Amino acid sequence: MAKIVMKFGGTSVADLERMRIAASYIKEEVDKGNEVIVIVSAMAGETNKLVETVNSVSSFFDAREYDAVVSSGENVTSGILALILQDMDIPARSWQGWQVPITTSSTHSSARIMDICTQNVKAKFDEGLKVAVVAGFQGISEENRITTLGRGGSDLTAVAFAAKFDCERCDIFTDVDGVYTADPRIVFKARKLNRISYDEMLELASLGAKVLQTRSVQMAMAHQVPVYVRSSFTGKPGTLVCSEDEKMENRTISGIAHSRDEAKISIISVADRPGIAATIFGALSDHGIIVDMIVQNISESGRTDITFSCPLEQSALAEKALLEAKEKNLVNFHEILQDLEVCKISVVGIGMRSQSGVAAKMFSILADEGINIQIISTSEIKISVLVERKYMELAVQALHDKFELHTNRISSEQ
Amino acid sequence: MAKIVMKFGGTSVADLERMRIAASYIKEEVDKGNEVIVIVSAMAGETNKLVETVNSVSSFFDAREYDAVVSSGENVTSGILALILQDMDIPARSWQGWQVPITTSSTHSSARIMDICTQNVKAKFDEGLKVAVVAGFQGISEENRITTLGRGGSDLTAVAFAAKFDCERCDIFTDVDGVYTADPRIVFKARKLNRISYDEMLELASLGAKVLQTRSVQMAMAHQVPVYVRSSFTGKPGTLVCSEDEKMENRTISGIAHSRDEAKISIISVADRPGIAATIFGALSDHGIIVDMIVQNISESGRTDITFSCPLEQSALAEKALLEAKEKNLVNFHEILQDLEVCKISVVGIGMRSQSGVAAKMFSILADEGINIQIISTSEIKISVLVERKYMELAVQALHDKFELHTNRISSEQ
Repeated sequence: MAKIVMKFGGTSVADLERMRIAASYIKEEVDKGNEVIVIVSAMAGETNKLVETVNSVSSFFDAREYDAVVSSGENVTSGILALILQDMDIPARSWQGWQVPITTSSTHSSARIMDICTQNVKAKFDEGLKVAVVAGFQGISEENRITTLGRGGSDLTAVAFAAKFDCERCDIFTDVDGVYTADPRIVFKARKLNRISYDEMLELASLGAKVLQTRSVQMAMAHQVPVYVRSSFTGKPGTLVCSEDEKMENRTISGIAHSRDEAKISIISVADRPGIAATIFGALSDHGIIVDMIVQNISESGRTDITFSCPLEQSALAEKALLEAKEKNLVNFHEILQDLEVCKISVVGIGMRSQSGVAAKMFSILADEGINIQIISTSEIKISVLVERKYMELAVQALHDKFELHTNRISSEQ
Repeated sequence: MAKIVMKFGGTSVADLERMRIAASYIKEEVDKGNEVIVIVSAMAGETNKLVETVNSVSSFFDAREYDAVVSSGENVTSGILALILQDMDIPARSWQGWQVPITTSSTHSSARIMDICTQNVKAKFDEGLKVAVVAGFQGISEENRITTLGRGGSDLTAVAFAAKFDCERCDIFTDVDGVYTADPRIVFKARKLNRISYDEMLELASLGAKVLQTRSVQMAMAHQVPVYVRSSFTGKPGTLVCSEDEKMENRTISGIAHSRDEAKISIISVADRPGIAATIFGALSDHGIIVDMIVQNISESGRTDITFSCPLEQSALAEKALLEAKEKNLVNFHEILQDLEVCKISVVGIGMRSQSGVAAKMFSILADEGINIQIISTSEIKISVLVERKYMELAVQALHDKFELHTNRISSEQ
C-alpha cells in the first residue's frame, strides 16, 4: 500500500461537476489500494475575488488579516470534496492548515513551510481513512495566525506533503496536459514533453511557464519527489518532472519560455563606488521588488548606468524605492528611465551544459527576425533575453521553429 | 474603561459599504474609551450559498465537513472588518473560533459553547488592542474539528463573549430597529418596545420573532447580560432586553408573535397504554424533530389520537420516524394525518402572571373573526394557538388591535 499526493488546482475544483471528476481520479487510486493525500486549491476565481475585496479596503493592509481572509477558499473546497468522496463511500475527511498543523514562517502572504505534523493525519489513515483532503496554500505561524504561501502555494503544499509522508509520487492536476516545449496558445506546433528534469522545470517555472510554482519544483528536487503534471480535463498522459535520465541528456533544448509583463528600469549616471550595487538592490529588496536581470554599463568618469528588469506590476514601487534611497542620500543618480513595454524570452535545456553555440544560434535567430536584444542573462541551462513586448510571439515562434522543438528527434546539429 | 460586545448580523456586513458603516459605530465606542469585542456573521447570503452547495452534494452528509465549509463566511468578514478598522487607525485584529479558542460540544451544526478562553484576547487588549473582531457562529470541538452553533449562532457567540468578559452590554446590530409589538410587515401600527424582559423576549424569540436567537436570550438571562437590539441601517434607538422592571410589569401584553411554517400531525387510533407518549415522542426526538404543541384526545375503548405540531420542513421526517417506530412494533396506530397549512399565533406578556382573562379575550377576538383554533398551548407569560395559515395576518392584526398594542398606555381593562 503506497501513499500518494494528488493536488487539484482551481479550475479542477471550479464547481461540483469538476469536483466530482476530481473525486473519480481519487477513487481510481483508492481502488488500487493507495492511501491518498489530496491537496486542494480554492475554486477558480474565489481567491482573486477575496484579494480584490481586501485591496479595495486599503492598499497598505495588514498581511495577517489578508491571509486570514484569502485562505478561506481552500477551506470550502476541502470540506466539499471530502463530502463528495464520502458520498462515494470513500472514507475521507478534510484538514485545514491549523488542524494538520502545517507550521510556517511568519512572513505573511509568502510564508515558508517549516514543518508538517504527520501524526494526526497518519493516525486517521491507521484508523481506516483512505483520503485526507488538505486545504492547500495555507498554514499557521508561531503566533497561531493563518499564513498563506503565495501564488501557486498549493503546489508547494502538495510537494511538501509528498516529501514529508514519503509518497511514491505527487500528481498535480491542472487545466493543461503537461509541460510543453512552448506555450501552445502561441506556438501551434508546441509539443508536450513526457519527461523533464527538475532543473529544466525550475527554469521554465521561474521563467513564466505557469504550470508549476517555482518553489514547489525546488522542493521536489531537494526531496527527489517525482511530480506528475496532468490534466483533470482531458485525462491524457501528462509530464513527469523527475531527475535527469539519459534520454533527456541527449536533448539540447527542452522548451521556450516567455514572461509577458516585464519592466526595464535604468538608473542613469550613478556615482560608481564600491558597494553602490549592494545599496541599490538592497533598497529594492527591502521593498519586496523581485529584480531579475541586471546589466551595468562600463563606468565613465566615475559614473555608470545600471539597468534591471522586474515584474511590470512592481515598476512603480521600484521607482519609489529608488527615489527614497536618493532622498536619504544612500545613492546618487541623475534620473530613472522606465520601459514598460518589454518581455522576456528564454530557451531552456539541460543539453546546453555539453553543447556550445546555443546562445549564438538563439541570437542569430532573433536577429534574422529583426528583434533587438536589450538585456541578456544566462545560467547553466538557460539563456534569457529581454526584448520589446510586441515581438514576444514572433520570438517564441521563431525559436521553437529553428530549434526544431516540434519534432521528437534528438538533434545533434546544434 | 469598559468592555462591550457589538454584534453585526449578515445584512449589517453585507458589503464593504455596510461594513464601513459598522466600523463607524465601532469607532464611536472606541472614541468613548471602550474596548470592543465585535462578533460578525457572514455577509448576507454567503452561508446560505455554502449550505446549498453542501446539500447538493448529498442529503446525508458528515456534519463535521458541513461545519468546516459553512463556517468560512465568518472568517472572511472578521478579517475584512479588522482591515477596515485598521485603515481607520483603530488597533484591531481578527480571531477565528479556533484561535480564541471557543470550545464547544461535538454536536456539529448545533454545538453548544462550553468555554471561551479569555487569555489570548485579553493579552492583546493589554497590549493596546482596541477592537477584537471575532468570527461568530463557530467554535472547535474536543477533537479539534470546526463546529457551528446553528442558525443565528452569532447572537449566541456575542452574548457568550459578553458574559465571559464581564461586558457592560451586548449590542446586537441587525436590519430591524428593535423588538416590535408585532411584525411591522403585517401590522402597520406595530410599535417598537423600548424595553422588554428576558422572559418575554425568550417567548417571542422561540415563537418566531426572528430578532434574536432563542439560546442567546436564554444565555443573556442566565448571565444577566443587557442585550441592546438596534439597527445598523437607521441608527434609531432600539430595544433593551433586560431584567423586568416596574414599568414592564404594568403591561399585560408585550407583543404578538407568529410562526408561519408549521405542520400539524395527527396519529390516529393509537393503542393507549402507559408510556406510549414517551415512545412516540422519543422516536421523534431521536430523529431531531422539534415537537412544539401536543394534544391528546380522551381515550375511547383503549385507543386515542395524538396530535402535535412541528416545523413544516420536518413534517416528512416526522412521518418517516413514526412509520419506522410502527414497523419496529414500538407503537401501534391506525394512520397518520398531516395538515401542512397551519401557523402559530401567540400573545406574550409578563403581565399575564397577575391578570386573568387574557386567554378568554384572545379566543373571543379570534372567534369574532371566524378563526377556528386547532391547538392551544400556554405558559406563564404566553398563549399560543395553531390556526389555518390563511388566517395568519388577520389573526395578528385583530389581536394587535383589540389588545391595543399600538398605544403606549397601560391598559387595566383586561
